[in-house]
Amino acid sequence: MASNSFGNLFRITTWGESHGKGIGVVIDGCPAGIPISDEEINAALLERAPGRSKYTSPRKEPDTGQIFSGVFEGKTTGAPVSIVIMNQDADSSKYEPIKDLMRPGHANYTYLEKYGAFDYRGGGRSSARETACRVAAGAVARKMLVLQGVHISAAITQIADVRTNCLEVAEGDLSDLRARTYADPVFCPDEKAATEMAAKIKQAVKDGDSLGGAVGFVATGIPVGLGDPVYEKLEAKLASAMMSLPASKGFEIGEGFAAITMTGMEHNDAFIEGGAQATETNHAGGTLGGIATGLPISGRVAFKPTSSIRKVQKTVDTAGKAADFELPKGSRHDPCVAIRAVPVVEAMLALVLADSLLLNRAAKL
Amino acid sequence: MASNSFGNLFRITTWGESHGKGIGVVIDGCPAGIPISDEEINAALLERAPGRSKYTSPRKEPDTGQIFSGVFEGKTTGAPVSIVIMNQDADSSKYEPIKDLMRPGHANYTYLEKYGAFDYRGGGRSSARETACRVAAGAVARKMLVLQGVHISAAITQIADVRTNCLEVAEGDLSDLRARTYADPVFCPDEKAATEMAAKIKQAVKDGDSLGGAVGFVATGIPVGLGDPVYEKLEAKLASAMMSLPASKGFEIGEGFAAITMTGMEHNDAFIEGGAQATETNHAGGTLGGIATGLPISGRVAFKPTSSIRKVQKTVDTAGKAADFELPKGSRHDPCVAIRAVPVVEAMLALVLADSLLLNRAAKL
Amino acid sequence: MASNSFGNLFRITTWGESHGKGIGVVIDGCPAGIPISDEEINAALLERAPGRSKYTSPRKEPDTGQIFSGVFEGKTTGAPVSIVIMNQDADSSKYEPIKDLMRPGHANYTYLEKYGAFDYRGGGRSSARETACRVAAGAVARKMLVLQGVHISAAITQIADVRTNCLEVAEGDLSDLRARTYADPVFCPDEKAATEMAAKIKQAVKDGDSLGGAVGFVATGIPVGLGDPVYEKLEAKLASAMMSLPASKGFEIGEGFAAITMTGMEHNDAFIEGGAQATETNHAGGTLGGIATGLPISGRVAFKPTSSIRKVQKTVDTAGKAADFELPKGSRHDPCVAIRAVPVVEAMLALVLADSLLLNRAAKL
Amino acid sequence: MASNSFGNLFRITTWGESHGKGIGVVIDGCPAGIPISDEEINAALLERAPGRSKYTSPRKEPDTGQIFSGVFEGKTTGAPVSIVIMNQDADSSKYEPIKDLMRPGHANYTYLEKYGAFDYRGGGRSSARETACRVAAGAVARKMLVLQGVHISAAITQIADVRTNCLEVAEGDLSDLRARTYADPVFCPDEKAATEMAAKIKQAVKDGDSLGGAVGFVATGIPVGLGDPVYEKLEAKLASAMMSLPASKGFEIGEGFAAITMTGMEHNDAFIEGGAQATETNHAGGTLGGIATGLPISGRVAFKPTSSIRKVQKTVDTAGKAADFELPKGSRHDPCVAIRAVPVVEAMLALVLADSLLLNRAAKL
Repeated sequence: MASNSFGNLFRITTWGESHGKGIGVVIDGCPAGIPISDEEINAALLERAPGRSKYTSPRKEPDTGQIFSGVFEGKTTGAPVSIVIMNQDADSSKYEPIKDLMRPGHANYTYLEKYGAFDYRGGGRSSARETACRVAAGAVARKMLVLQGVHISAAITQIADVRTNCLEVAEGDLSDLRARTYADPVFCPDEKAATEMAAKIKQAVKDGDSLGGAVGFVATGIPVGLGDPVYEKLEAKLASAMMSLPASKGFEIGEGFAAITMTGMEHNDAFIEGGAQATETNHAGGTLGGIATGLPISGRVAFKPTSSIRKVQKTVDTAGKAADFELPKGSRHDPCVAIRAVPVVEAMLALVLADSLLLNRAAKL
Repeated sequence: MASNSFGNLFRITTWGESHGKGIGVVIDGCPAGIPISDEEINAALLERAPGRSKYTSPRKEPDTGQIFSGVFEGKTTGAPVSIVIMNQDADSSKYEPIKDLMRPGHANYTYLEKYGAFDYRGGGRSSARETACRVAAGAVARKMLVLQGVHISAAITQIADVRTNCLEVAEGDLSDLRARTYADPVFCPDEKAATEMAAKIKQAVKDGDSLGGAVGFVATGIPVGLGDPVYEKLEAKLASAMMSLPASKGFEIGEGFAAITMTGMEHNDAFIEGGAQATETNHAGGTLGGIATGLPISGRVAFKPTSSIRKVQKTVDTAGKAADFELPKGSRHDPCVAIRAVPVVEAMLALVLADSLLLNRAAKL
Repeated sequence: MASNSFGNLFRITTWGESHGKGIGVVIDGCPAGIPISDEEINAALLERAPGRSKYTSPRKEPDTGQIFSGVFEGKTTGAPVSIVIMNQDADSSKYEPIKDLMRPGHANYTYLEKYGAFDYRGGGRSSARETACRVAAGAVARKMLVLQGVHISAAITQIADVRTNCLEVAEGDLSDLRARTYADPVFCPDEKAATEMAAKIKQAVKDGDSLGGAVGFVATGIPVGLGDPVYEKLEAKLASAMMSLPASKGFEIGEGFAAITMTGMEHNDAFIEGGAQATETNHAGGTLGGIATGLPISGRVAFKPTSSIRKVQKTVDTAGKAADFELPKGSRHDPCVAIRAVPVVEAMLALVLADSLLLNRAAKL
Repeated sequence: MASNSFGNLFRITTWGESHGKGIGVVIDGCPAGIPISDEEINAALLERAPGRSKYTSPRKEPDTGQIFSGVFEGKTTGAPVSIVIMNQDADSSKYEPIKDLMRPGHANYTYLEKYGAFDYRGGGRSSARETACRVAAGAVARKMLVLQGVHISAAITQIADVRTNCLEVAEGDLSDLRARTYADPVFCPDEKAATEMAAKIKQAVKDGDSLGGAVGFVATGIPVGLGDPVYEKLEAKLASAMMSLPASKGFEIGEGFAAITMTGMEHNDAFIEGGAQATETNHAGGTLGGIATGLPISGRVAFKPTSSIRKVQKTVDTAGKAADFELPKGSRHDPCVAIRAVPVVEAMLALVLADSLLLNRAAKL
């Protein structure tokens, strides 16, 4: 399928299934001279780790990444950076009872039709476990970005019908915002909204059901001119990055769908004299014609409610016969996948920006 | 920038500025054996043509494409198909008065910062005129799709606060739906909604302002298994395709952002026995894990209100000094760019699907 | 086939058949700020033009290129540079008699088998006429290279059994060498060898037969560190570039095949203190591990004798029946294709180096 | 650098340094349904293993590969196949004495200049150890090829001035030829030539010097029409594949450089009626216009004499000061790298053909 790579110059290739020997990522095109360590990779992986809060899956996967290549004496060498995360929690016997059933909302049906076979253990390649590799690679990209003055952050901005616009005022160094986000159990830095969201999730768990959510993102310190025209517009690359995440169903930059009900006079950001920013407002979300204005790049990603729920659902088996689908006892799933998507959205944002920074060096003679 | 190509195997490269000698597209990787003619290309271009209805720009660009290569005796040969559209309406003198001003909502500021120069005539490369090339290439892709039983359609589903869900019931051959869509002045097949939308636009024109809109799209006859995992998920490619369009600010597949307020039990599509489709409902919008279920692929694209409006706006000049921006007399712009985006969204959908059809041939031994 | 593009960041896509409406090239990723004009393109095309000397085909194709996009006020803008060369000498009726015959040494058999159809007029896409597009794009690349202090040159170094090592001492600015090369009828700056080669060609013409040749190339002013490791080694990209030329059968860098009979002690280039160059000798041909040492990059390309000859040859028709193949009266062909390949080899060298220069900007943080 | 991937649809990415934790390869785009096992990978690695014969380096690297992903129940699943080879012989202390010296004929100078740092241990990324990953991936590609009736083989055809044309008559299933090749200490199936070559090598070892060599390759059972036009010609992809190998200095297809001294009448392969092959002779080496004729694809690769020799050589240190270079005691190197390149050339041939087989599926509607 040759569909496991992302990026042009700063390019990742991920591999591995949730119940194989391990998973991993190769970063090809990582510039030489970036200081990076196993510890930094693993700090990032910890932000995504299951069992991190009571609202995410209580499984205990260590998810410890190890840099196998591309780093020498503490810095990247220009050679591919290979990071391997060995699998440990690999008991796949519990998947036996459902191995011949189509899982509602899951990809085993489509994989089976496409490839003629499916690695049924824990979702195989379609498992969200793949996103750990994105986070590992994103940690390297983020390190590079910070050294260039670019900061990124993501957070939950909606769960079910509870919304917050907590990211709208983000600017400058985003370390505090990130710290507050990851300190909260639902990865939302707006305390009031977070409390309401937590209550919703508790109820969903009690119901054996699941909830959808939105992840907002923001990047600051963006050099004017970053991004490329036409098919490689920053928003196109971001959209591709975010819509490649499991369970994502929508993407917005700037005002997004809300721009539809604005007029041109309301939406156009007026250019202003001097100062720290090009325009007075930032309805555009940081790009014009796909290229950065220098103002914060911001947007949102919609995630559907988790497909894995504790209810009996109608389905068919591999022979096409009607059957009931019920999750095996003891299998554990997040009631709201959007929460654990927060560090993954950050990672994809970092990967897009790192790639764009390198591409931008070729713009002029 | 090397950012003017789209697609993997069925790959287009577009070129040209709105006020240069012409614009064009090269389709590389077009399979041999597709019957195609200048007439078919031009019929497609006509659907996008300005001046087509009273609600789009009254400019008279002929937009006549000519196949320069890759077709012999009426069929594609496997060689690159080059289509050239010569520019005719090339009076750029009217842009002289604004050539040193940043245009609010436009890309001249970001291009200037990125490249050190900007072809100010009519927007240069950032002009929506580039989308004519997408439509020309899309006509070839659509021809290939129809021969494989795949049908596509797009339509306006929202302008300002007027919405319709007119595409929801689309299935089978979509020729009728397309015919009704393009017969309507706002490209909306729902008569009642279309009338309201038209009224809104009239008012915006009177106000010298502009409106945003949403374009819905649907594709039927999709082979199960189409699309690729991980970074080349169908929805990721579609999102990239649509977010590369000028003025697009958001993308959704299936329920999109509405999925956030659904529960897992509500959103999961139940697999059902036999019959024409895999699942009972299609909240997913036709994909699971990025790969087609065989049900219609559907989604929406949000377009901001047209940036070019008839009001005086605050801006700065190339020296950074405050100035007023006003459009030259006689320059003409659509009050709602979403309308003319309808055939372009269809083209991008066709290009993504044609590419995926070819890629899919490599899935199995 | 998606096989008509070359290069990563400085990327060309060519299109067109020898007897269609025209041929052309799109340069995507050309940096902004390179001064270039139609005149410069056409001066380059003239070096490749048929009928240029008595030893190349006497056809009169004007081969006039026109820049359709990407240049504004005399400089590249960062947008794709599209160059179109309209076909004029398009009488394809003379190909009628041979349209159902396999041409020995030509690609109509393989194209027919691959695509199910073949544009028999003048070789269709497999025609060497495609190389005019490479030369046009190469002129832009060379312009960029010269501005960065990189100079390139190619020349005939062998025809039949007449050899010269005329390029071995090339260094610095290569303008004189180029001038002498293109002043000579066989594009060989070594007068003595050129005279012998010319005699060989005259005899071949008389015999109705054709001759093979080698084209040597050299590039100076190369920044140390240019090129990339592993699969994008400079020699790998050069080999790919040169072996993509019609009629090429072999590629060498540095000593090439002659290195086989040297010992390690003889072949290793000793590093030396200070001065203008890193090593005392340059058996390597300017790269170590695929990356430039700063010494001249040099090598050779082997071209088979022209397939089109004035003798009757055994063949079969499209039905597989034995037949005699004879060229139509009045069709004209070079007795030694290597000669006209000289400017094309230069163009490919320029394209590889321009791409590598841009890629090299991403090597370090 | 993003230069560690090879192939379009059947695409490999390699990573790892000779003295890091390990090396590995990810095959992305491997079709589902290919039966493959660790044992088959390791059998292939064994053919390349050092210490395999008395004429290759006596180091004892186990070079055991393990499939980490992409294979389920004995067959590829369509997911990326990740193969990891852990490093064991990782004593890098012996490189300490030479860590500040430029190694004649090696890449540490160019890497240092390019990246600002160099992993001096055993050559870092430029080490020929990377080719083990190519062999591992090539084993998967070869498995796919054999299932489609394509057979490949490579062998030594020249060492110093001893030559053989042992591959010229190769046809059909090549298992016997391969068996005889790998049974011979210099990987040459022509016993007489092999004996002379062995004598030359013994003398070189005694002299503390090294020898160059040529590796010939052949592939049979090629479907007519395989390969793509223009920039993806089979010979261009093969050339790129082979010239990306460490120490390779030249590439030929068919007659290669010898074609220069042939006339067109001699070189043109006459098409013949019916039978098993399209042309009477195969001077072309199996392609016309870059696309396969169905006859065996054959060519040669030139390898320079090993750079690592037991003699004192002139060099400079990282400060640019003159110094003597001498290999550390106990370091071991092949006297002729061409020998161990034989299985690597086979691997690259397999990778090119597997990729082309998949690409070929997209040629026609």
